[in-house]
Amino acid sequence: MTPMLEFSQFSPRKIGDSAVVLLSGGLDSATVLAMVKKLGYTPYALSFRYGQRHSSELDAASQIATVLGAIRHEIIDLDLRRFGGSALTDMTLELPTSKTNTPHQNIPITYVPARNTIMLSCALGWMEALNATDIFFGANAVDYSGYPDCRPEYVKSFETLANLATRVGVEEHTVRVHAPIISMTKSQIIQTGISLGVDFSQTVSCYQANTQGHACGICESCRLRHIGFEEAGVADPTIYQN
Amino acid sequence: MTPMLEFSQFSPRKIGDSAVVLLSGGLDSATVLAMVKKLGYTPYALSFRYGQRHSSELDAASQIATVLGAIRHEIIDLDLRRFGGSALTDMTLELPTSKTNTPHQNIPITYVPARNTIMLSCALGWMEALNATDIFFGANAVDYSGYPDCRPEYVKSFETLANLATRVGVEEHTVRVHAPIISMTKSQIIQTGISLGVDFSQTVSCYQANTQGHACGICESCRLRHIGFEEAGVADPTIYQN
Repeated sequence: MTPMLEFSQFSPRKIGDSAVVLLSGGLDSATVLAMVKKLGYTPYALSFRYGQRHSSELDAASQIATVLGAIRHEIIDLDLRRFGGSALTDMTLELPTSKTNTPHQNIPITYVPARNTIMLSCALGWMEALNATDIFFGANAVDYSGYPDCRPEYVKSFETLANLATRVGVEEHTVRVHAPIISMTKSQIIQTGISLGVDFSQTVSCYQANTQGHACGICESCRLRHIGFEEAGVADPTIYQN
Repeated sequence: MTPMLEFSQFSPRKIGDSAVVLLSGGLDSATVLAMVKKLGYTPYALSFRYGQRHSSELDAASQIATVLGAIRHEIIDLDLRRFGGSALTDMTLELPTSKTNTPHQNIPITYVPARNTIMLSCALGWMEALNATDIFFGANAVDYSGYPDCRPEYVKSFETLANLATRVGVEEHTVRVHAPIISMTKSQIIQTGISLGVDFSQTVSCYQANTQGHACGICESCRLRHIGFEEAGVADPTIYQN
């Protein structure tokens, strides 16, 4: 497997260019950070304390940022509980354990209204302040949960906006919003991450991990992750709660 | 003057529909809030404590939200100083007092990287959680300061994004991002606001107002505001520092 070959389209214009990488602490964005580093960017990792159910994914993000070589890691406080509307930020709503019990036809209750747009916008602000032109975003549209803001057309539209919204975009039209794993299956992401040296035992994907970062094993995110390891033929390193 | 006639294009689909209104505490967004209320929406006002130089514009926003009939007013904490890159959030940078001393050809140092994109994204999150479809934004591209994220093509692009980013956008394609004063001169905005009963003495536009909300009288924003009152033939109600 030569994963770098297929990622050359995401290469920096110049080795060492700064790039902002959205880092959740999960499996997907850890793989993206490893890729960004390997491609020769100087990575700035960005995470959010937005009112999610647990903070162990942020602990994971900090560890991953250090291990995978981010030059700086910022955790932004932005309380999305003020708006409500999602099981991830509203503790009174119950998390679904399978795709069947979602109240909206295609979009599940774990969808956080405009979360990716808000995070990408903050990444755009940091990117511009750094005089950089690249943002990396670990969206995935294959083994995903039906979120509208994880689709290729959404990412493309944000890139268009970014070039109208910023100084560098208006003057040079050079802002790029990369979603390098958007078309990969979970098992392909896992294989790629392993080839890049990602230790997935450090990542937390579970929607309701405990304070030690141990996973519930039954939520949608746990389910997709576990199937991914199975399909990749890799032992699942996730530590599950008993 | 019959300002409502020309604003009918911004009417709600149904009287009483909720709309999120970005409210800075300045002259422009106060006028927009008055307009939204007059058009028959139920307005939800949204402001940000993003690390701006003074909080008197937020005090003004709270007062305006109450007086002009917002059903709810949220002030979101989001520290953009973490990113830097603007004289509005970086106290080590000096504020320009005229258009001549801006370091970038067209875009001044008071531009805050991606600020409007970040604020509109948060408005989008609240809008979606409210099951609403309308956002109002007081951008102005006439007597403005050369910010890329105040232009009509930017607003249109955000609307396109909003319809790809959200549940209601994907399912019904009905999200509207309105910038009703974008093509008006400052004096037209002032005349419109007065016809709608806005008390502009409650608004704070100054980039460096003191804690009482008194204006410096020399920054770019004070300059544009004062000329606006002159051109509108209206006595400037701004209280200036001595």
